[in-house]
Amino acid sequence: MKLPQELKLKDLAFFIGGKVVGDGDTKVSTFAMNPLAAKEGDLAVLFDKAYLKRIDECKASAAIVPSGTKCSIPHIAVDRPLLAMQKMLGAMQPKRFIPPNGIHPTAVIDETATIGEKVAIGPHVVIGPGSTIGDNTTIMANCVIGGKVNIGRNCLLHPGSLIADYVQIGNRVIIQQGASIGSDGFSYVTEKMSNIERRLAGITPLSKEQNSNLKIPNIGNVIIEDDCEIGANATIDRATVGSTKIGAGTKVDNLVMIAHNCNIGKDVLVIAQSAVAGSCKIHDRAILAGQVGLKDHITIGADAIIEAQAGVLSDIAEDAVVVGSPALPAREHLTNVAYGRKGEQMYKQLRALQKKVDELEAQLNGKAMATAK
Amino acid sequence: MKLPQELKLKDLAFFIGGKVVGDGDTKVSTFAMNPLAAKEGDLAVLFDKAYLKRIDECKASAAIVPSGTKCSIPHIAVDRPLLAMQKMLGAMQPKRFIPPNGIHPTAVIDETATIGEKVAIGPHVVIGPGSTIGDNTTIMANCVIGGKVNIGRNCLLHPGSLIADYVQIGNRVIIQQGASIGSDGFSYVTEKMSNIERRLAGITPLSKEQNSNLKIPNIGNVIIEDDCEIGANATIDRATVGSTKIGAGTKVDNLVMIAHNCNIGKDVLVIAQSAVAGSCKIHDRAILAGQVGLKDHITIGADAIIEAQAGVLSDIAEDAVVVGSPALPAREHLTNVAYGRKGEQMYKQLRALQKKVDELEAQLNGKAMATAK
Amino acid sequence: MKLPQELKLKDLAFFIGGKVVGDGDTKVSTFAMNPLAAKEGDLAVLFDKAYLKRIDECKASAAIVPSGTKCSIPHIAVDRPLLAMQKMLGAMQPKRFIPPNGIHPTAVIDETATIGEKVAIGPHVVIGPGSTIGDNTTIMANCVIGGKVNIGRNCLLHPGSLIADYVQIGNRVIIQQGASIGSDGFSYVTEKMSNIERRLAGITPLSKEQNSNLKIPNIGNVIIEDDCEIGANATIDRATVGSTKIGAGTKVDNLVMIAHNCNIGKDVLVIAQSAVAGSCKIHDRAILAGQVGLKDHITIGADAIIEAQAGVLSDIAEDAVVVGSPALPAREHLTNVAYGRKGEQMYKQLRALQKKVDELEAQLNGKAMATAK
Repeated sequence: MKLPQELKLKDLAFFIGGKVVGDGDTKVSTFAMNPLAAKEGDLAVLFDKAYLKRIDECKASAAIVPSGTKCSIPHIAVDRPLLAMQKMLGAMQPKRFIPPNGIHPTAVIDETATIGEKVAIGPHVVIGPGSTIGDNTTIMANCVIGGKVNIGRNCLLHPGSLIADYVQIGNRVIIQQGASIGSDGFSYVTEKMSNIERRLAGITPLSKEQNSNLKIPNIGNVIIEDDCEIGANATIDRATVGSTKIGAGTKVDNLVMIAHNCNIGKDVLVIAQSAVAGSCKIHDRAILAGQVGLKDHITIGADAIIEAQAGVLSDIAEDAVVVGSPALPAREHLTNVAYGRKGEQMYKQLRALQKKVDELEAQLNGKAMATAK
Repeated sequence: MKLPQELKLKDLAFFIGGKVVGDGDTKVSTFAMNPLAAKEGDLAVLFDKAYLKRIDECKASAAIVPSGTKCSIPHIAVDRPLLAMQKMLGAMQPKRFIPPNGIHPTAVIDETATIGEKVAIGPHVVIGPGSTIGDNTTIMANCVIGGKVNIGRNCLLHPGSLIADYVQIGNRVIIQQGASIGSDGFSYVTEKMSNIERRLAGITPLSKEQNSNLKIPNIGNVIIEDDCEIGANATIDRATVGSTKIGAGTKVDNLVMIAHNCNIGKDVLVIAQSAVAGSCKIHDRAILAGQVGLKDHITIGADAIIEAQAGVLSDIAEDAVVVGSPALPAREHLTNVAYGRKGEQMYKQLRALQKKVDELEAQLNGKAMATAK
Repeated sequence: MKLPQELKLKDLAFFIGGKVVGDGDTKVSTFAMNPLAAKEGDLAVLFDKAYLKRIDECKASAAIVPSGTKCSIPHIAVDRPLLAMQKMLGAMQPKRFIPPNGIHPTAVIDETATIGEKVAIGPHVVIGPGSTIGDNTTIMANCVIGGKVNIGRNCLLHPGSLIADYVQIGNRVIIQQGASIGSDGFSYVTEKMSNIERRLAGITPLSKEQNSNLKIPNIGNVIIEDDCEIGANATIDRATVGSTKIGAGTKVDNLVMIAHNCNIGKDVLVIAQSAVAGSCKIHDRAILAGQVGLKDHITIGADAIIEAQAGVLSDIAEDAVVVGSPALPAREHLTNVAYGRKGEQMYKQLRALQKKVDELEAQLNGKAMATAK
């Protein structure tokens, strides 16, 4: 990876912070993603323990390392190398082709919409009646924004984002390609008692008559607070009544499903393909790793971690870590998995033991009988 | 949640049906989603057992309750409170910003397409050759409809819906944002015997030569019958030959995948992120809870429930409830889970028992030896 | 399924290859997807063992069968019937309504973009600065292609495909509706030590202060090599640095998530709703069945099969077949599942055995006591 220009280590330190150790005039022109594959001229960033252990093998000309690391090549010592890399990548970022400020002539903006200063609206964008777009916000090609939508300042909507009526979006929010915000929730009611209701009430037999699912209107909306990011092709449904809420700083990954009336706290991470069923409450900084499923009306405590592919059927406490489907505390789950792998061994041992006990019993009773004779 | 206007209880009863108990002139102006958080002026709807148990704590001015419920505040007694709420929300629904009747000037409609009466076609919509759009149907912004597509009457296609060639859609169908109907199925054939075929035939070793996957053309289509709803960013693939069918009244949630040649019955519910592999047959009123996976060529009986995250590898009988991956009858699965949690206990008990038996054996043989002396 | 025209068996054999057995003048006009439901006039293709066993029940007028099959109706014997069907369906394929060559007047093509010969660009397509579209490529309605994108020859982009800046696409690539290529990866760093870092370092208690997730810029791109197909609404994220790579001939199904910096080999199959976390390496011809999840930085060996819904937490060897979450070798997993179903039986047997041993012990000690008396 070429750097945008050749850099002296001391100049880089000026930009990202940290303390130069060794020759500050060392020049780097390329960046090595894998420090162990680095070669002369490369800058390497070492933040992973696995790499730090093998730091002596690193052939880069210079490195960024955590403060206190023994490192024989010229380097910048920083508190948080990943944070240094984040700053550095920001500077290295190639031009992204966002539309220029102004409204592209092919965009269809309702005359009652309010467009802020320095807003860039790309080709084929549609914005509905009464909507407001804040200053410095960019709306890329082919996005559709419904009526009475508010979008704050400094937002970036990637191409093909779909934002339905009444959705409220804060400042500095990023929406990735094809995300759908404000689609209707999945809620229906049957005219007659449904078979689900019959099962719950213990009524048999189930009805085999037609009993249509009537759509429950979704009169609520979606609120996305400041600094959120919503992933590509993710879907966030509007509330039946009130709002589906995504708290400030929360990041939602690709293909995630957030159902109607969920209330997600601040700085939560919802990773790829997770599904949060209706009316869940997720507290601040909780993490849903990939492909997690939450039953409806569940509460997830602050800082809880729901591990990948877990299926959560009941409330999870603050700081808890749960695994599996149904989800259990990590230690309990791992114990179950470990002993689950001993099933065959236990089965065979049990069979052998049964045989032995039968023999002992026969021996004992035979002896008893012999004694009795 | 504000009601569109202040209402007297007796006027509401006129609209939603049911019997007024207490002062029919009681006025409500707001709606409380959570009955236990309701306050004066609120209308509460109590249909959940958990709320009904605590009905005395409800501070709403008025309520909708199931007939026969003891309730000290003015209320309307109805057979199905959720159905009453559905009607009420319908009346409360704020204006949705759908395009006006007519064809937006930026839409590109093939001259051989047939557009019905009172059809509303939004900006940047594309409709291909020979397609037909029924009366009163609304096609929102940036939808793309291929050639020879038929869409019935009173349908609503939300923005960015993608409907490929030859798809047939009935009446009163709703397509949510970004759904893809009629994309090609995932079916390939290799020029030479594939490694999957080698494994099935027990041929070793596997081949390490290149053996490209050739696309099998998808010459079929998708048929969606009346009254279906398809969720945001869901995908329904066309059939290899014939049709992928979604029966009348079936509801498909967000991010669901229905593969080629599936045949789904009437009033089926397919909940978020479920995946139905090729050529499955799902009978009427079956329910696939979220994140369910079905192997290809499976049959699911009528009224069967496939619980969330289940993985179904074989046919499921009518009325059955299955859980887990691989899916088992609910009771069997729960038994397995319950005993699976006793693994450590059983392991330790088994070890202790083994020790005891060894001791008994030693004792018995020692005694036997002693006796023999 | 009607054939495009009535065909003699010998003419069909000329087209698909193989050897005619029986009357080559037999005419067929329709194609039966299910050979056992075939009737007079139908052509049936028998490639599945289940069907071949019941070949005598097939009422079709003619058939395509594997060489060496005993078949009493006129037929074509071929080495690979599915390959024959693939060729036949190719010929039967109805017209698909792709845009004509040229650029639709509503498309917005940057003046610095380079468009090849015989390129077809549909309505409302957007192509950014410096992008290149190769000869004979078709870009259907409402696709958005960013800046500095290269798309090769003979590609087909279905409607609503979203291709972000700098993405590189080879020749003969097919992108299904609504797929998102090149969205940003899900990578963040916190200003202060995060709670994940605290947990890893064993620091307690967790911090309850706000600690925002800062976006790590994604300065890399996505490379999709020749002959790939990407499914509807699938998402492939760009690399943090370098490239997310999809090797030649690899097929990615609907709603799949490929995260940043993954490196996928040639002729890999990634089936519906699978998720590959960041920086995974998947070798040639591996298969990820549906709804699979891969932890980040995992390597999957060539020809490995990851069965549906598996969750992979560590590297998988070449040719391995793994099942379950966490994924285990198939045989081991099946053994665990089988013994897991014996939990109740084992528990009860263990309890009974414990009782028996207690009795034997009492008997033995009683006897011992009796003897001692």
